[in-house]
Amino acid sequence: ASSEDLTQVLIPVAALVGIGFALLQWLLFSRVKLIEADEEEEGIDNIEVSIKCAEIQHAISLGATFFLFTEYKYLGIFMGVFGVIIFLFLGSVKGFSTKSEPCIYNQENTCKPALANAVFSTIAFLLGALTSVLSGFLGMKIATYANARTTLEARKGVGKAFIIAFRSGAVMGFLLAANGLLVLYVSIYLFKLYYGDDWEGLYESITSYGLGGSSIALFGRVGGGIYTKAADKYPEDDPRNPAVIADNVGDNVGHIAGMGSDLFGSYAESSCAALFVASISSFGINHDFTAMSYPLIISSMGIVLCLITTLFATDMFEIKNVREIEPSLKRQLLISTILMTAGIAMVSFFAWPSEFTLFDFGAMKEVKNYCSPVQDVADSCRIGAATNVIFGLALGYKYVIIPIFAISISIYVSFSLAAMYGIAVAAIGMLTTISTGLAIDAYGPISDNAGGIAEMAGMSHKIRERTDALDAAGNTTAAIGKGFAIGSAALVSLALFGAYVSRAGIKSVDVLTPKVFIGLIVGAMLPYWFSAMTMKSVGSAALKMVEEVCRQFNSIPGLMEGTAKPEYANCVKISTDASLREMIPPGALVMLTPLIVGTFLGVETLAGVLAGSLVSGVQVAISASNTGGAWDNAKKYIEAGGSEHAKSLGPKGSDCHKAAVIGDTIGDPLKDTSGPSLNILIKLMAVESLVFAPFFAAHGGLLFKFI
Amino acid sequence: ASSEDLTQVLIPVAALVGIGFALLQWLLFSRVKLIEADEEEEGIDNIEVSIKCAEIQHAISLGATFFLFTEYKYLGIFMGVFGVIIFLFLGSVKGFSTKSEPCIYNQENTCKPALANAVFSTIAFLLGALTSVLSGFLGMKIATYANARTTLEARKGVGKAFIIAFRSGAVMGFLLAANGLLVLYVSIYLFKLYYGDDWEGLYESITSYGLGGSSIALFGRVGGGIYTKAADKYPEDDPRNPAVIADNVGDNVGHIAGMGSDLFGSYAESSCAALFVASISSFGINHDFTAMSYPLIISSMGIVLCLITTLFATDMFEIKNVREIEPSLKRQLLISTILMTAGIAMVSFFAWPSEFTLFDFGAMKEVKNYCSPVQDVADSCRIGAATNVIFGLALGYKYVIIPIFAISISIYVSFSLAAMYGIAVAAIGMLTTISTGLAIDAYGPISDNAGGIAEMAGMSHKIRERTDALDAAGNTTAAIGKGFAIGSAALVSLALFGAYVSRAGIKSVDVLTPKVFIGLIVGAMLPYWFSAMTMKSVGSAALKMVEEVCRQFNSIPGLMEGTAKPEYANCVKISTDASLREMIPPGALVMLTPLIVGTFLGVETLAGVLAGSLVSGVQVAISASNTGGAWDNAKKYIEAGGSEHAKSLGPKGSDCHKAAVIGDTIGDPLKDTSGPSLNILIKLMAVESLVFAPFFAAHGGLLFKFI
Repeated sequence: ASSEDLTQVLIPVAALVGIGFALLQWLLFSRVKLIEADEEEEGIDNIEVSIKCAEIQHAISLGATFFLFTEYKYLGIFMGVFGVIIFLFLGSVKGFSTKSEPCIYNQENTCKPALANAVFSTIAFLLGALTSVLSGFLGMKIATYANARTTLEARKGVGKAFIIAFRSGAVMGFLLAANGLLVLYVSIYLFKLYYGDDWEGLYESITSYGLGGSSIALFGRVGGGIYTKAADKYPEDDPRNPAVIADNVGDNVGHIAGMGSDLFGSYAESSCAALFVASISSFGINHDFTAMSYPLIISSMGIVLCLITTLFATDMFEIKNVREIEPSLKRQLLISTILMTAGIAMVSFFAWPSEFTLFDFGAMKEVKNYCSPVQDVADSCRIGAATNVIFGLALGYKYVIIPIFAISISIYVSFSLAAMYGIAVAAIGMLTTISTGLAIDAYGPISDNAGGIAEMAGMSHKIRERTDALDAAGNTTAAIGKGFAIGSAALVSLALFGAYVSRAGIKSVDVLTPKVFIGLIVGAMLPYWFSAMTMKSVGSAALKMVEEVCRQFNSIPGLMEGTAKPEYANCVKISTDASLREMIPPGALVMLTPLIVGTFLGVETLAGVLAGSLVSGVQVAISASNTGGAWDNAKKYIEAGGSEHAKSLGPKGSDCHKAAVIGDTIGDPLKDTSGPSLNILIKLMAVESLVFAPFFAAHGGLLFKFI
Repeated sequence: ASSEDLTQVLIPVAALVGIGFALLQWLLFSRVKLIEADEEEEGIDNIEVSIKCAEIQHAISLGATFFLFTEYKYLGIFMGVFGVIIFLFLGSVKGFSTKSEPCIYNQENTCKPALANAVFSTIAFLLGALTSVLSGFLGMKIATYANARTTLEARKGVGKAFIIAFRSGAVMGFLLAANGLLVLYVSIYLFKLYYGDDWEGLYESITSYGLGGSSIALFGRVGGGIYTKAADKYPEDDPRNPAVIADNVGDNVGHIAGMGSDLFGSYAESSCAALFVASISSFGINHDFTAMSYPLIISSMGIVLCLITTLFATDMFEIKNVREIEPSLKRQLLISTILMTAGIAMVSFFAWPSEFTLFDFGAMKEVKNYCSPVQDVADSCRIGAATNVIFGLALGYKYVIIPIFAISISIYVSFSLAAMYGIAVAAIGMLTTISTGLAIDAYGPISDNAGGIAEMAGMSHKIRERTDALDAAGNTTAAIGKGFAIGSAALVSLALFGAYVSRAGIKSVDVLTPKVFIGLIVGAMLPYWFSAMTMKSVGSAALKMVEEVCRQFNSIPGLMEGTAKPEYANCVKISTDASLREMIPPGALVMLTPLIVGTFLGVETLAGVLAGSLVSGVQVAISASNTGGAWDNAKKYIEAGGSEHAKSLGPKGSDCHKAAVIGDTIGDPLKDTSGPSLNILIKLMAVESLVFAPFFAAHGGLLFKFI
């Protein structure tokens, strides 16, 4: 019992420490005042620039808030409707009876009625969704608060700017991780007041927390992803461009808010998957609270260790020039991984009778140091855009190979050690450094925005160079983060899938039964259908934006010459409307597929769909991200002109560079909209199936019943 | 027994009728003499043009023959090595013992020793491979014989040219179908002299016939596919272009010889799959020869009914103008499908106790009449190449949806009717009209070549317009043919997969066992790996060709002005070398994967790999073909300028057209190299696994045995 007490104290304390640390970071970087008459500044010491920065920041913040609030209106409706669906579907499992029933896995005990599970599942879903909304919103607020400050600090040197951008990323990272853990922990604690010894029902309801978090993440990713790409096709950061504010808003709602919701969703789902699998294992049935809390303890440990890691970046080393930024970020990943490996070993030793060896996903790292394949892609620009595109596609396909082998090996090893629970815990292991990962991820778009503000405010070219360096340094580490996101998504989905099969009472998912096979092939098709929708949406949204920009240039006299101001707000509105309208069909596809398949075709076909979408979605996601990244890097390689070879392909504006730009534009929706959303697709369908499994098992497969 | 006698007569007679009909068609179109002083010709009556045509035809034929012979040298080595592998692997199943054993499925009977199966499997493999080589070679010979004749006849009118092109396609179609059937039938007949009542061993050995046919098809498709795209990037058919002959050779070795081998492979595999499944069914064990021969009877019926169908095109209707060509080709598909539906119903009624309803794959037809999606893609060219590419990719992804549903439904229905045998027979049903399908498919590249010859020989623009019309009319029907090829490939693979699981003695292919799941996810990755290889190969081969063309233009004085002749032979050699070298890695990937996985990871993981590559490969193949097709059609739509809308996007050379050309170039390797090869990938891995199943069951899974 003493270890149980310790656990009950440790988890909330760690969460509160995380939140406190985030607030401290906030306090530190908010000391940079937007408008101050600083004497030491490098010559351009004029208050006008500062005012301009503040104005631009304000416009970006307003646009982002406007978008998010409009989005949340839609999401509110979705949450209400889906909450009712959860309640009705799960309540109907035993015909809305209020009688307690014998438990499913431990038939000697008595469990709470299915109706209670329906009520608590609905509550957990709403809690997860609201936490996800909050995570995205807070992230956006922090990022828009930090971007102009980064610009201003860049005047003092790259090191100062780095600290601001990184601190703001850390605020977001710690706030999200700690908040997610706290809400989950408190929910379990409160739910237990009702459920008492019925842990089956308790953790079954808690699973909906993951569903709520993940479904908001889907809409956030898709909506934000469309938004950020709709406005991203013109001379970036040219203040005459009417779409320039919309573009910067897009960075904040797509990369920051969308990613915040996404990573919160991953975290919530992997925790719920591990908790659910554990709850129906022997120690769940034996009510070993410390062992049950193992996933949460690991997460708590993650917050504390990431906190220590952050100090290395902000206080122990000082960035003096541009070259030091990237090593500093990589050091963050390295230190947090080493600390976590030790930490997890320790936690496993104390909280767990048997020891765990968690497979290190090092092989998944997709280091993209403008290495030889990128040079190939850049070289192919010589022949023209088409060859560039073909080489990029081929490269993206090729980059699928190693991650898939790494995922396969980790699945086999972790399954051999602890079956499905091993897979769930492996997924959590990959996500424990979420605070650091999120800090690095958020740091990129903040620096990007800072650069945009510098240019729009008419600051010197030197400032822009510094913020660009900050942004570029984050790309490699962000790519590693993406690899982790995909890998953990695959593991989480598999664990959820296993839990679903168990909960739905399926004996074996035999590919050679036609019900499963048709599910498998249709499931493998879904990532394509989903990508078709999102890519088409980006194209349509961009088309509307082009028309508006052309209209403004034609109808506003003096705009081209820079003497008149463009109507930024129109473009913001177009992006907002387009992305909100366009996010509904792909979102509906993901949310409705498990419901339709489970209800009409039954649990076996749904099992096939989950397996199919998992194995196919992972490939499409990895290749989309890498293809897009390869084109992006090939373009940057030519633009940077860092070597003789690169210079022979450039300069900006050459035919070769034009071809590279075409590739980059094609890659954008792949790497920023389709790719990241596919992670969510595979996880979300799995967690949704798990939540509705009791209903499908009781009433599903209507079509085959009638044939 | 009387029905058995009838069967034994009917099948070879039908095959001989098919061969006879092919020879008759040959006789008919060979009456067009290449060099004749024809008085009625439209003004350009000069013998010089005819001589030039004959010269160009000779050059193309020489280039194609050179390529194929070089390819066959490599394939000869492959056949020898792989034949030895088959013999050693299968012979080792029972330690090369020459003792007869109790049968596997009917343990009361005695079956021939495993060593005999090894010997006959090797023979069947070689027979299949040789028939496939022969099919490709004959096809190429016929096509190069017909192309210049089509050009010359085009001077007399489009109807005459159509008859020539169509007849030559028919020669190829009937020769291949009849030849494949005859060799298979004779092999079974001869093998039976040894095997007697041991039908298990007999049909197990015969399966290697499919493996042989299909493995040659893979190399033919990949090698030919790379060849045809390597030389396909310049002003086509400009005689000053050094790569022009290589380009025309590419049409013949890629589209004609490659496709001939491919379709023969499909046919051989689906027949072998059905025969194998039948041989281990109740009527196989009961030695009901007529029922066993059901797949072959259907194919015989197909030859006869396609023969009747052909008469509709060549003798009953006369083509008077360009608009009548496409309806005429579509009529061919319609008539053959209607006749076959009736024919199969009849055969099923007589040869089979229970009746079969074969699902009509009508929903799979991908009619591409420049319909609205293509207009969308064409429209997107306004914004630039990148948007065009994104829309095309999205469209290709979207086009995956309906075929997958159609395949799923047909799988479910045919499985419900007759389990795996139903699926095998459904695949055969889709391929019964192979003669007509192949005639239409071959007709396209022949017309394309004819156009090239017309331009190179300096004939009037009118002639070129006619041959272009012939070519364009074939595109829609060829797209339908591609849809059939992919659909039947999916069904054949599934049937082979089922037979493999049965033969390997696997109880159930449960996705939730880690051995199967890692197979599934790695299998789903293989189509990407394969596509990465083939697409990269096309890019590299094209790069070499560009360098050679530039070199010639720079070093041969007068080439640009048209006063000097380019060195065509160099380009032919570059294409030949590049495509042969580049076809080895993807070929090795496909051929080695089942061997490595089966030997080291065992039969369950291999089952996962087969299921994964099937469900993922179908999606990649369909989307690749459709994406490529959409870009191609968008370009043609703009070039044709057939509507106000199309005119607003053109003309040739406009920015919009340039963007469309980029899309088309990207699509080429997708639709002509990767896409069609993927069909073969999924079938070939399945048939190879089936052939080696006894070995894997006896000695496989080494890795897990040691861990």
